[in-house]
Amino acid sequence: MVQNKSVIFLKHPTEYPVAGEHFEVQTKELHANLKDKDVLLRNLYISLDPYMRGRMRDTNKSYTAGFVLGQPMNGSGVSEVIESKNDAFPVGSIVTGMVDWSEYSVATGAQGLRIIPDGRNSKIPLSSHIGVLGMPGMTAYSSLQIIGQPKAGETIFISAASGAVGQLVGQIAKRQGLRVVGSAGSDEKVAYLLNDLKFDAAFNYKKGVILENLEKCAPEGVDIYYENVGGETLEAALEVMNNHGRIVACGMISAYNNPNPYGIKNLMHIIAKRLTMRGFIVSDFAAQCAADFARDVGGWLVNKEIIYKEDVAVGIDSTPEAFIGMLNGKNFGKQVVKIADL
Amino acid sequence: MVQNKSVIFLKHPTEYPVAGEHFEVQTKELHANLKDKDVLLRNLYISLDPYMRGRMRDTNKSYTAGFVLGQPMNGSGVSEVIESKNDAFPVGSIVTGMVDWSEYSVATGAQGLRIIPDGRNSKIPLSSHIGVLGMPGMTAYSSLQIIGQPKAGETIFISAASGAVGQLVGQIAKRQGLRVVGSAGSDEKVAYLLNDLKFDAAFNYKKGVILENLEKCAPEGVDIYYENVGGETLEAALEVMNNHGRIVACGMISAYNNPNPYGIKNLMHIIAKRLTMRGFIVSDFAAQCAADFARDVGGWLVNKEIIYKEDVAVGIDSTPEAFIGMLNGKNFGKQVVKIADL
Repeated sequence: MVQNKSVIFLKHPTEYPVAGEHFEVQTKELHANLKDKDVLLRNLYISLDPYMRGRMRDTNKSYTAGFVLGQPMNGSGVSEVIESKNDAFPVGSIVTGMVDWSEYSVATGAQGLRIIPDGRNSKIPLSSHIGVLGMPGMTAYSSLQIIGQPKAGETIFISAASGAVGQLVGQIAKRQGLRVVGSAGSDEKVAYLLNDLKFDAAFNYKKGVILENLEKCAPEGVDIYYENVGGETLEAALEVMNNHGRIVACGMISAYNNPNPYGIKNLMHIIAKRLTMRGFIVSDFAAQCAADFARDVGGWLVNKEIIYKEDVAVGIDSTPEAFIGMLNGKNFGKQVVKIADL
Repeated sequence: MVQNKSVIFLKHPTEYPVAGEHFEVQTKELHANLKDKDVLLRNLYISLDPYMRGRMRDTNKSYTAGFVLGQPMNGSGVSEVIESKNDAFPVGSIVTGMVDWSEYSVATGAQGLRIIPDGRNSKIPLSSHIGVLGMPGMTAYSSLQIIGQPKAGETIFISAASGAVGQLVGQIAKRQGLRVVGSAGSDEKVAYLLNDLKFDAAFNYKKGVILENLEKCAPEGVDIYYENVGGETLEAALEVMNNHGRIVACGMISAYNNPNPYGIKNLMHIIAKRLTMRGFIVSDFAAQCAADFARDVGGWLVNKEIIYKEDVAVGIDSTPEAFIGMLNGKNFGKQVVKIADL
């Protein structure tokens, strides 16, 4: 009998989740029992994303369905079909879609799965399909255009700029002729922004005063703030925003694990400077942007006009630590877990 | 020689302005010395508005020109032309535009003045031209449509709902088939919202817990929050907003006189609920809305389909106290000062 390791959700955390208390890896025997249209997946990569912290909350107010206590956690993944009762997904297909954080999982009715053409002979890493070509990439691409409305010559400030979304936002903004400023949590990440992604300016938010660093990096103010972190960084951005600026509210990771988050005192700038701050989730924009996104980002990636850094944890056992590390900003680039080789 | 009383700006306040310290009434002899195109005005009404607190700040970051130390404060007014070197504004004309907080003032080149047709025989109070038909009315009308995008059946929550802007927002929203909820600072104001303006629900924000009151008044959540106050009221609104809600950021009076304003901790709702929060100043929208505004609000007012409460202080000497009172929410309805009878 095949043994199957899964990351099981145990308890709703109120602060940082703790492995063994809120989630843990458990081993069970695999019983696939496929019904008509089902497929059995051998999972290769799973995506770890900050928004998933919201799915751990004990509330029905989170914007995506919560994880179920006692069940495997789940998210975007790349998998191989190893057993199939669905003609559209023959054995051997490489697919992407929502999968369990498990070595093997059943996709009921193959719902939401999509075949990756040439998946077995891909010119780009398979993990790209849950990163730069997946949900984080679509998030960056769609929201920058629809909410940010970038114009050449403007300045954009991106927080968590070396992360899954930020690094693509910055590179697209550079292509569109903006001055690009980023913040990140280590000197190594800042060097990546400046040297590899060619940002115009960047700073380590853990060193010095955020507002002073931002003022130095954006002497002409900020027209678009791409918000991933919240807290003092948002407050600093509000101080330096230009009139009619746009705040793309993608994430506020500083608040996710804190039951008493930092209070923002200078929202008056939203009125005085006539700012627009707009939240979104990627599914709001996916349909209208899918074709453009695939053509643009897919093309840039194949032609090596953009780069995309991933932080790859190896093995299902590494998942809890990688997830907690990502919530603490320890990841350098988009966090994925490689569960198995193809 | 004619004596002329004016309210002179003396000092930038950091908290609530104090009469005699930050501004005071002074009497000087009137020396008109009109040049070509100038007119001399006998001022009848002046408008006192919360945004003017921003013009008292010692900063160039306020969104309108600051008051000038040692000079009269100014704002919208209604005046009679009593001396004229401008053929477009003959003696006896009733005009509205930016005027000094003075009994008499010179309008250089008659800049920005507009004649009120039938001003001497008006069917509506002359003060309407600085209230419901003036800047506050245009503010309410334009921003509700452009930012709020109201749809019949939705719920709108309006803070400072009996104020200059709020009372018109509420009545327009009722006309458009929305469920209208308001907050105000006294039981008398709440009774006005319910009985006179026909709001669906209203509460006194000084009694009980704001969030609990709001939840009771808006059991199906809030689709549009018309923001005039900031602070805890904004925080409560964020809690009850529905997905895709809009926040019309018109004012945050709770923060104007406080160098250390209340910090907003739950902005994460902007992302989770995909909210849009947008600031504006009325001049952003005035051109595109002027014709519709004059037709709609002017028509409703003449036909008594809407009502509009004013709080009228009498005499230029009453101005400092009335202004401070307005910043404290003591006004009941739109605050004006009647300086003289026609």
